[in-house]
Amino acid sequence: MRTIFWDYENQQIKMIDQRKLPVSMEIHICQTIDETVTAIREMVIRGAPAIGICAAFGLALAAQRSKSQQVSGLVADLEIASFKLQKARPTAVNLTWGITRILDEARNFTGNADELKGLILSKAQQLADEDVMINLKLASFGADLIEDGDTIIHHCNTGALAAVDWGTAIGAIRMAHERGLHLHVLVDETRPRLQGSRLTAWELDRYGISYEIITDNMSGYFLRSGIVNKVLFGADRVAANGDVINKIGTYMLALAANENNVPVFSFVPTSSIDISVENGDQVPIEERPQEEVLNISVFNIKATPEGAHARNPAFDVTPNELINAIVTEKGVLHQPYALTIAEIFN
Amino acid sequence: MRTIFWDYENQQIKMIDQRKLPVSMEIHICQTIDETVTAIREMVIRGAPAIGICAAFGLALAAQRSKSQQVSGLVADLEIASFKLQKARPTAVNLTWGITRILDEARNFTGNADELKGLILSKAQQLADEDVMINLKLASFGADLIEDGDTIIHHCNTGALAAVDWGTAIGAIRMAHERGLHLHVLVDETRPRLQGSRLTAWELDRYGISYEIITDNMSGYFLRSGIVNKVLFGADRVAANGDVINKIGTYMLALAANENNVPVFSFVPTSSIDISVENGDQVPIEERPQEEVLNISVFNIKATPEGAHARNPAFDVTPNELINAIVTEKGVLHQPYALTIAEIFN
Repeated sequence: MRTIFWDYENQQIKMIDQRKLPVSMEIHICQTIDETVTAIREMVIRGAPAIGICAAFGLALAAQRSKSQQVSGLVADLEIASFKLQKARPTAVNLTWGITRILDEARNFTGNADELKGLILSKAQQLADEDVMINLKLASFGADLIEDGDTIIHHCNTGALAAVDWGTAIGAIRMAHERGLHLHVLVDETRPRLQGSRLTAWELDRYGISYEIITDNMSGYFLRSGIVNKVLFGADRVAANGDVINKIGTYMLALAANENNVPVFSFVPTSSIDISVENGDQVPIEERPQEEVLNISVFNIKATPEGAHARNPAFDVTPNELINAIVTEKGVLHQPYALTIAEIFN
Repeated sequence: MRTIFWDYENQQIKMIDQRKLPVSMEIHICQTIDETVTAIREMVIRGAPAIGICAAFGLALAAQRSKSQQVSGLVADLEIASFKLQKARPTAVNLTWGITRILDEARNFTGNADELKGLILSKAQQLADEDVMINLKLASFGADLIEDGDTIIHHCNTGALAAVDWGTAIGAIRMAHERGLHLHVLVDETRPRLQGSRLTAWELDRYGISYEIITDNMSGYFLRSGIVNKVLFGADRVAANGDVINKIGTYMLALAANENNVPVFSFVPTSSIDISVENGDQVPIEERPQEEVLNISVFNIKATPEGAHARNPAFDVTPNELINAIVTEKGVLHQPYALTIAEIFN
């Protein structure tokens, strides 16, 4: 099953509810643009590629629900919907990417309103299908970098659940596994939302890939011990200079890997590369609700005092010099990223 | 109330049950040496100074309970008890330190068995009292390093709960606060057992010190942002060359601090310095049960799949070159630590 798909019978979006995994596998339905915005904000769906596609389907939903009989009114409704989607989460550039792809079609359209509704849904569906193919290419380039016997540290979730299917870094690990390589993955649990222990562990278990969960603060220990061959993660946005904006904790992991001469690979579809920002420090970092940090129990004991406060930046910036390669569907990029990134956008 | 103390009415050890905080404040009682060993292993009590004193009181308990009428038999019982205590946890050197202090008294004793029992209890009590004074001295040296307006990242728990009273790094923060300095502490939650969010946050709240909880993987983000002035933590053992063996995650934190030119201070009583090990890599690193990593819930959802496996090293080694100063009750040590440490043991 895809992570997100259009329900043609009922004209609605269906997606795996990622808040419920690994305890239960439930399908979440969005019937309005506001429900779609909420699903993105509350992380029913997450992962840069997945939320890009979700935005596109969200606009298809807005178009279906629009009461306007005129193309101009329909485009106006789409622009309102885009504005809401854009604000759902600020850091990943894929929201903007998905919205722009759809809006460009709508703005340049010359037929009637019904035709435009059909076109937008087709375009969203096409982006979803392309996402799978992009991920497969990306996974294939990535799998070529993985060697038999590798022990890999992976941060957050970059698997099928982070995209429409397959995913990025986990896609590469899965493909290397299917090629017969023997791999072991140390899964960063990825506080505070535990995308590693909840989602990545669940996926690896289904694929039959050997793994062990570690707390994020253990990766330095394993890197220093010499047993780790590679560090893999995705990116929510890559700046023009190759700085990687990714799930909180990526920066410390990349630092510790560099200190111990373990190569670091970031996996992204080119839709996550934003050449309009020069470097990572120009990207807004989302700060999410404190409750995500505070609402934690270990051994059924609530682990924070009543009334405690927390900080909760959801992403950090990893300077490009800590990244050994950026793997995209168009190939593997190396330093100087300012140049190699510019080339693929020319 | 002290973290651990002798109950003279009932001849038993009482300690704050640190597994129950911050939800409830309960007193745990140990009436036998086996109960004492279990309390250390299961971390009813933890923190290098505290478990050193717990070992000493454990031997006092073994002495009280011994049926031997002869000094030689009593010493033999103490050696059996010492053997059990020694195995409870391998990394902190304070267990050995507490045991050795008591055994040395017993082995050199020339009176009768009853007198020896009394002597051992007095000696354990003396070590507990000394611990408070050592911590006060250490805190005073440490407070001198702290400046008004400092934002400090602190890892694990080094407060009153980690010792008999006051503690080490948190002791210094508390003393600086009592001197009137305005401080803010970013409290690493310290996975997997959450000594930061459970114990340090609870202590800081009681002392009225401003704090926010962060997940361990966020410290790189805050260090890179420039708002952090100092990084403070304790140590479970310090090697002769100044390598610091401390709670898992310390190494990555120290690396990120160094990368961002933020000074790193390790706080230890000299009882935690082990000049018999040349460097940190010679110290055994305890690997604790997987369940400590796996048994975690966020928003009441169990966050790991059924049957998942985990790794759980409890400590890591931070190379001495990442430590700007080691604060002891005998003063503040700087590089070259091999020399400055050797000096205080001469």
